[in-house]
Amino acid sequence: MSTNTVKAYGTSAADQPLQEMNIERRTATDTDIEIEILYCGVCHSDLHTARNDWGFTSYPSVPGHEIVGKVTKVGSKVTKLKVGDFAAVGCLVGSCQTCDNCKKDLEQYCSNGWIGTYNSEDKHLGGMTFGGYSQKVVVEEHFVLKVPANLDLAATAPLLCAGITTWSPLRHWNVTNGSKVAVVGLGGLGHMAIKLAKGLGAEVTLFSRTPDKEKDALELGADSVVISTDENQMNAVAGKFDVIIDTVPYVHDVNPYITTLTTSGTLVLVGYLGGLEPILNTVPMIMGRKSIAASLIGGIAETQEMLDFCGQHNIVSEIEIIKMQDINEAYERMLKSDVRYRFVIDMTSLK
Amino acid sequence: MSTNTVKAYGTSAADQPLQEMNIERRTATDTDIEIEILYCGVCHSDLHTARNDWGFTSYPSVPGHEIVGKVTKVGSKVTKLKVGDFAAVGCLVGSCQTCDNCKKDLEQYCSNGWIGTYNSEDKHLGGMTFGGYSQKVVVEEHFVLKVPANLDLAATAPLLCAGITTWSPLRHWNVTNGSKVAVVGLGGLGHMAIKLAKGLGAEVTLFSRTPDKEKDALELGADSVVISTDENQMNAVAGKFDVIIDTVPYVHDVNPYITTLTTSGTLVLVGYLGGLEPILNTVPMIMGRKSIAASLIGGIAETQEMLDFCGQHNIVSEIEIIKMQDINEAYERMLKSDVRYRFVIDMTSLK
Ligand SMILES: [Zn+2]
Ligand SMILES: [Zn+2]
Ligand SMILES: [Zn+2]
Ligand SMILES: [Zn+2]
Repeated sequence: MSTNTVKAYGTSAADQPLQEMNIERRTATDTDIEIEILYCGVCHSDLHTARNDWGFTSYPSVPGHEIVGKVTKVGSKVTKLKVGDFAAVGCLVGSCQTCDNCKKDLEQYCSNGWIGTYNSEDKHLGGMTFGGYSQKVVVEEHFVLKVPANLDLAATAPLLCAGITTWSPLRHWNVTNGSKVAVVGLGGLGHMAIKLAKGLGAEVTLFSRTPDKEKDALELGADSVVISTDENQMNAVAGKFDVIIDTVPYVHDVNPYITTLTTSGTLVLVGYLGGLEPILNTVPMIMGRKSIAASLIGGIAETQEMLDFCGQHNIVSEIEIIKMQDINEAYERMLKSDVRYRFVIDMTSLK
Repeated sequence: MSTNTVKAYGTSAADQPLQEMNIERRTATDTDIEIEILYCGVCHSDLHTARNDWGFTSYPSVPGHEIVGKVTKVGSKVTKLKVGDFAAVGCLVGSCQTCDNCKKDLEQYCSNGWIGTYNSEDKHLGGMTFGGYSQKVVVEEHFVLKVPANLDLAATAPLLCAGITTWSPLRHWNVTNGSKVAVVGLGGLGHMAIKLAKGLGAEVTLFSRTPDKEKDALELGADSVVISTDENQMNAVAGKFDVIIDTVPYVHDVNPYITTLTTSGTLVLVGYLGGLEPILNTVPMIMGRKSIAASLIGGIAETQEMLDFCGQHNIVSEIEIIKMQDINEAYERMLKSDVRYRFVIDMTSLK
């Protein structure tokens, strides 16, 4: 298969910093779109993959799945976009497109395994897929999104992971005008959850362990902040929320939040993978028909719906733009939660 | 308040057997219905309450909340039933009827606390409510159900708790024609879950730890039985079920069942109150947007809907009729799961 060499930033081992490297991108096929990457958001998954925190990274590894750029080439069968259009790519670049889930626009749950934008098997070239920390990417048309013309391009990038990860559960659990939504955790995911829930017309509360997030949360659009370590404040919101979006990425006690769900309410985990400790108590659940669920990013149609919604409501991420060469320092700052609220790489710095 | 003395069967302490006693029933008010009890089902909650297993029993205690009988008196404002009609009473005999939940026909989640048929505060007479192990009961019209004329009266009694407890989650989670439903546990609740899910048009599977339940489950209408301790059988149903009704009343590992849910599926606990051990792993949940929920009995309108549905589909419980005097022995047999599938007391034996 014909390929083109492009510059990228990646790592050759778990204990190595990211550095410039050359990678091959396939020449666009009939159904492919080639994109010059202008901006790429920096997700915690990038860091975890680069450092093999989950134990399944193949090296060399090039992270990045919050991609915004400009179309530079389209295959002969492509109708969605044309050369010069702005385009976006999120966490998915492939799926079987034939299973029940794919047919329902739930590619993220593809029964035959979806292809991640990085560190997934590359069906075209062999080896593994390389992500958005690079000059160009070539993606099947189906997995390329259109970018609303009015949105700031750099601040749009994080919508492709942080945005859709919170949008999908808000929509699936029917958040609408007047819904009462709570968000646990104010990071990349949490700040998007506030903006999107607010955009949908919900009354939005942030749960925070410390009061220092209050000002920021209110500026982002939250109607109130509840300090989760303050028993009086927690009691005051008992039985209140229709949906809670829990973005906390580490193990934490969800039982106090269950108590704040209203009858038939649902707490959705979008940040944590692992065992629920301390153990979940079913008594408050049965006393109000409450659910706990978990949700993974979103499908392609739903991602486009989210981008279009953000265009209509002028919603983007809060970002700090960095150069590609600053990525290792940015990872260290992310580990200290020293970012409001997403780093976005200006990819022209890689030229 | 004017009262009438009736015979009942109850207990004066946690370590005492049930025995005959006299209790007072209020004279029917304008909005009350007085019912001569013909049959009363025997629920595990009766036993737990009589023996103070949950620590909040007041004595003397008269259990019983699966009541079927004949109307003997109606208040001047009662329109639902008339003297001579068959009537039923389930787990609820009161609620505030003004809170948001009550207004949505969710009296079982009344924000001001619903009144249980036994061992709840009796707002009329003071003291605690007495249940269906008695000759008569007087209940506010709103909490009295109509009994379809074609159903066997004795076999209808367990519908008032075991039936509605499984019906409510089947309906709330949209089980319909073609749904794939699994039931965990084949007791009073489980056998009703099979019959009701089948009545709704679902394909029904029983999860059982041992093969000895297979014949019974198929006779009750299940399409298949999966032995949950057989890894091959469990793998064969991975990702299959839309809804799982888990009726197991003791702590057990739900993780293997989560794996058998399809994308966006829900496992509903209806039998277990307590901590989920071993700990719940969120990974299989996030990989398919799966939920775990819990559900408590059902509201009054929903209970009537269930009774009417059972009338149309000729669904009743499988029962063994006992005399009131046999209740202590029946409790011992229930503890050994030696009942198919519900004891029902012939209340004429109390005369
Ligand atoms: Zn991400
Ligand atoms: Zn698929
Ligand atoms: Zn019961
Ligand atoms: Zn109420």
